[in-house]
Amino acid sequence: MTVNRQWLLAKRPDGMIGPDNFKYTETPVPTPGDQEVLIRNLYFSFDPTQRNWMVDRPSYLPPVGLGEVMRAGSVGQVVESRHSDFNVGDLVQTTGCWQDYVVLAPGEGPMGLNVLPPGVPPELMLSVLGITGITAYFGLLDVGKPIAGDTVLVSGAAGATGSVAAQIARIKGCRVVGIAGGPEKCAWLTDSAKLDVAIDYKAGDLDAQIGAACPDKWNVFFDNVGGSTMQAALNHISLNARIAMCGGISGYNDIEPQPGPNNLMNLVTNRGRMEGFIILDYLHRAAEAVQELIGWVGSGEIQYQVDVQEGFDNIPATLQRLYTGQNKGKQLLKIADPE
Amino acid sequence: MTVNRQWLLAKRPDGMIGPDNFKYTETPVPTPGDQEVLIRNLYFSFDPTQRNWMVDRPSYLPPVGLGEVMRAGSVGQVVESRHSDFNVGDLVQTTGCWQDYVVLAPGEGPMGLNVLPPGVPPELMLSVLGITGITAYFGLLDVGKPIAGDTVLVSGAAGATGSVAAQIARIKGCRVVGIAGGPEKCAWLTDSAKLDVAIDYKAGDLDAQIGAACPDKWNVFFDNVGGSTMQAALNHISLNARIAMCGGISGYNDIEPQPGPNNLMNLVTNRGRMEGFIILDYLHRAAEAVQELIGWVGSGEIQYQVDVQEGFDNIPATLQRLYTGQNKGKQLLKIADPE
Repeated sequence: MTVNRQWLLAKRPDGMIGPDNFKYTETPVPTPGDQEVLIRNLYFSFDPTQRNWMVDRPSYLPPVGLGEVMRAGSVGQVVESRHSDFNVGDLVQTTGCWQDYVVLAPGEGPMGLNVLPPGVPPELMLSVLGITGITAYFGLLDVGKPIAGDTVLVSGAAGATGSVAAQIARIKGCRVVGIAGGPEKCAWLTDSAKLDVAIDYKAGDLDAQIGAACPDKWNVFFDNVGGSTMQAALNHISLNARIAMCGGISGYNDIEPQPGPNNLMNLVTNRGRMEGFIILDYLHRAAEAVQELIGWVGSGEIQYQVDVQEGFDNIPATLQRLYTGQNKGKQLLKIADPE
Repeated sequence: MTVNRQWLLAKRPDGMIGPDNFKYTETPVPTPGDQEVLIRNLYFSFDPTQRNWMVDRPSYLPPVGLGEVMRAGSVGQVVESRHSDFNVGDLVQTTGCWQDYVVLAPGEGPMGLNVLPPGVPPELMLSVLGITGITAYFGLLDVGKPIAGDTVLVSGAAGATGSVAAQIARIKGCRVVGIAGGPEKCAWLTDSAKLDVAIDYKAGDLDAQIGAACPDKWNVFFDNVGGSTMQAALNHISLNARIAMCGGISGYNDIEPQPGPNNLMNLVTNRGRMEGFIILDYLHRAAEAVQELIGWVGSGEIQYQVDVQEGFDNIPATLQRLYTGQNKGKQLLKIADPE
């Protein structure tokens, strides 16, 4: 425990991110000051929005600076504590960034510093019970506002957030149609996640597939993809429909922004609402979501997949898996086991 | 009073509408049945959405059929009544369509059949106190939800609906920026309608002009235009902003739909809401709007312009004025004076 391995942001992205966007370095392990704790990172969370943090433009969080450690959600273990709320050995969820060790005080970082509930494994904390599950919960219920009997369309439905949103919609009595890439993901959606229909966008003609899956159109669209998926979806919008805009992964690696949907006027004729949200606004209500999510995971009503890569060297390549659709469910990477 | 002149929908539009979309004909004056009234049309209302009614696709009203009289809002005068609520000589607002005479029963037609309040001239009833004013009222207040101190951006701000929305925003204590085409319309916006800033989109670089006019970005966007105007506006959206989508006149005459805004993701990062509405959903609350609008017109707080063309032959060409931006405020056409 003398070296702190780090992946720094070396170059801002121009198109698809790649290895040259990051630079490996080693620094001394930091020392916690008064009221601080030293955390050893164990698991990193990989999230599509990380690509946005790499770009130098105003957004909901400041961009990661060039030469700074790449920002990432994490679960780690307290190895030294100078704060009475934290004990050595505690597992904590925080924004540990791509490095072995981080020094933090409670309240620091966009997601704070929280001890894991007893018995919750890191893989569950970084998926259904973490930011992605909470995002799905509030995005679907507070923004999408589904009503039992609604048809709910979800894009990126086999992904970490989409899969939870889709299953919550099913639990709430909705007919759920999920869009994912490839037969394996689609089989998981219908067989394990018990969605009503899974659409494989790689099989072509997404517009026709949505039309066939939603003969009475859709009432709620939980969108993680944007771009041409949004346009295809808007062709099948029902009266008074709601779109919960969670993200737009299809465009994150574009050099030139792609054109938007050419049928936004369907929002007018159908009195539709399209609304973006950021989970940071809901973190003060996280307990409400986690309590319900724990119950649904425990009862088996919510199924989830975690895709755990390993090895510090593989961190940059693992981020890229999100944008090529290689991840099966929530993408994580483990660099160490808890002691 | 033997001939009923009519303009029929002869051909569905393909690109910009023109004279060949309509066909002139003459039929006998119809006879009212029991509980019906015979109305002589005096004024026609011209509204951008009429182009949408000419297209054979599902929308908020059924399309006008080929060979049917073109649908239009109107003010007329009762010339024969077989209904106890209507007297000969009454001025009525309804959907009289492009013809001299129409037979209607109360409740027929998308806008019903309503006697004008005493003393309200037809030109005011078909502008600020009619569908366009009511659209502005509910679209701005119920969908846009401006708060005093907000910056409100309005496109099509010199138009019938936009000009009322912009002035209501001003009355509600907002800073108002209007977008219009040409120096004459812009001068009217600042000099008569008392907007804070008028942007002439024909002067170029709309994006930079919006940025300069909204240094703290905008909180509410009342949009009548869509397309590239929406894209430019979305570059200057503030946190928790609202877009009231009233229409998208820029695209109504496109043969191929134009691409949508390439920056819809700004709705996510800013937690923005984009919502379409149709005034038919608010007609049951029309009295609430009309009462306030009458007061504001009476006090001079709302200024308005009506552009009254004349002559039955000029009806099709007058509709086209909307899409070329020739109209100065609310576009009307008069075919007869009340008796």
